[in-house]
Amino acid sequence: MPKGQPTVVPDDGLTTRQRRNRPLIIVHTGPGKGKSTAAFGLALRGWNAGFRIGVFQFVKSAKWRIGEQTVLERLGALHAETGEGGPVDWHKMGSGWSWSRKGGTEDDHAAAAAEGWEEIKRRLATEAHDLYVLDEFTYPMKWGWVDVDDVVETLQNRPGRQHVIITGRDADPRLLEAADLVTEMTKIKHPMDAGQKGQRGIEW
Amino acid sequence: MPKGQPTVVPDDGLTTRQRRNRPLIIVHTGPGKGKSTAAFGLALRGWNAGFRIGVFQFVKSAKWRIGEQTVLERLGALHAETGEGGPVDWHKMGSGWSWSRKGGTEDDHAAAAAEGWEEIKRRLATEAHDLYVLDEFTYPMKWGWVDVDDVVETLQNRPGRQHVIITGRDADPRLLEAADLVTEMTKIKHPMDAGQKGQRGIEW
Repeated sequence: MPKGQPTVVPDDGLTTRQRRNRPLIIVHTGPGKGKSTAAFGLALRGWNAGFRIGVFQFVKSAKWRIGEQTVLERLGALHAETGEGGPVDWHKMGSGWSWSRKGGTEDDHAAAAAEGWEEIKRRLATEAHDLYVLDEFTYPMKWGWVDVDDVVETLQNRPGRQHVIITGRDADPRLLEAADLVTEMTKIKHPMDAGQKGQRGIEW
Repeated sequence: MPKGQPTVVPDDGLTTRQRRNRPLIIVHTGPGKGKSTAAFGLALRGWNAGFRIGVFQFVKSAKWRIGEQTVLERLGALHAETGEGGPVDWHKMGSGWSWSRKGGTEDDHAAAAAEGWEEIKRRLATEAHDLYVLDEFTYPMKWGWVDVDDVVETLQNRPGRQHVIITGRDADPRLLEAADLVTEMTKIKHPMDAGQKGQRGIEW
């Protein structure tokens, strides 16, 4: 619940307000559903708070367009029209600095993912967004396409007040160590186990 | 990923299409973050698919208004203006058929929660929505304010194609048994453990 109280008061020399406004590194990991959905839910909430939202999808196929992209981009357009909420910038690897495990060679994918990360680093350095969603970013880290120590160091030293949410299975322990909030989504039961395929409005 | 394939093909006499379009009971439970956020993320996705969204928050305080309510109601208004997406109907116990553990007696709360559930039953019977979010609905079930067997039977026998998402800790085993998709959110690390309070745009 939002009104929860901290269980300890740290001796870090910060005021409650400074501590409250500390930018967060959030990780959604584990084999269950909801990692990306909860991240986009946070983007929705951030948009409402006027945050400049940057979404960077490290997805397998650029052809796939999820409903959240349509809605969040629509909210970004609404911001431009009426000033409500904040601007939304959505990048999908695959359109532009794309990569895909199916097309191209593995070297191409690795290079594209590394380029994507370099772009995110540039944005963090210039404080381009207030909230970053790095969707499925654990995979390029896992596959060695992006250096985990570089990610952790960059995130830890990022300037200003930029929140970063990273999703995907098998998050590296160094990333978990650096994170402020980590939730693991565990699959208890899934309709695909009962032979059901995904459906519009639910799976995408 | 949306393109996942089922691991078994059931011998249930349904076509793939019929099976694909089967309405789902989804439960987000466990002590971690993201249960409600992922549910509202699904509502966002459903809105984009043109679903008629009904949100029923069994929250502790009606004073608290989360960002998702503002944004989803804004999207509902957008639907009314332009026809994009679907309509959104958001009910918060506390405004109207409200209840709160702080104000009023426990009997009042129990009665209000039971009334809320009766209203949801009426809507399910008339197929009022395509996607229901029953946020924090596990608690009135846990406290005996709403009969679990009645909930399970009502959900199992609901007509048409209505998806229902229920969030909250300690979901009853009978509900989990009836559900199609269950995800448990586990807390690995939380900033409140490090003495940090919640902040706008992240916690609400």
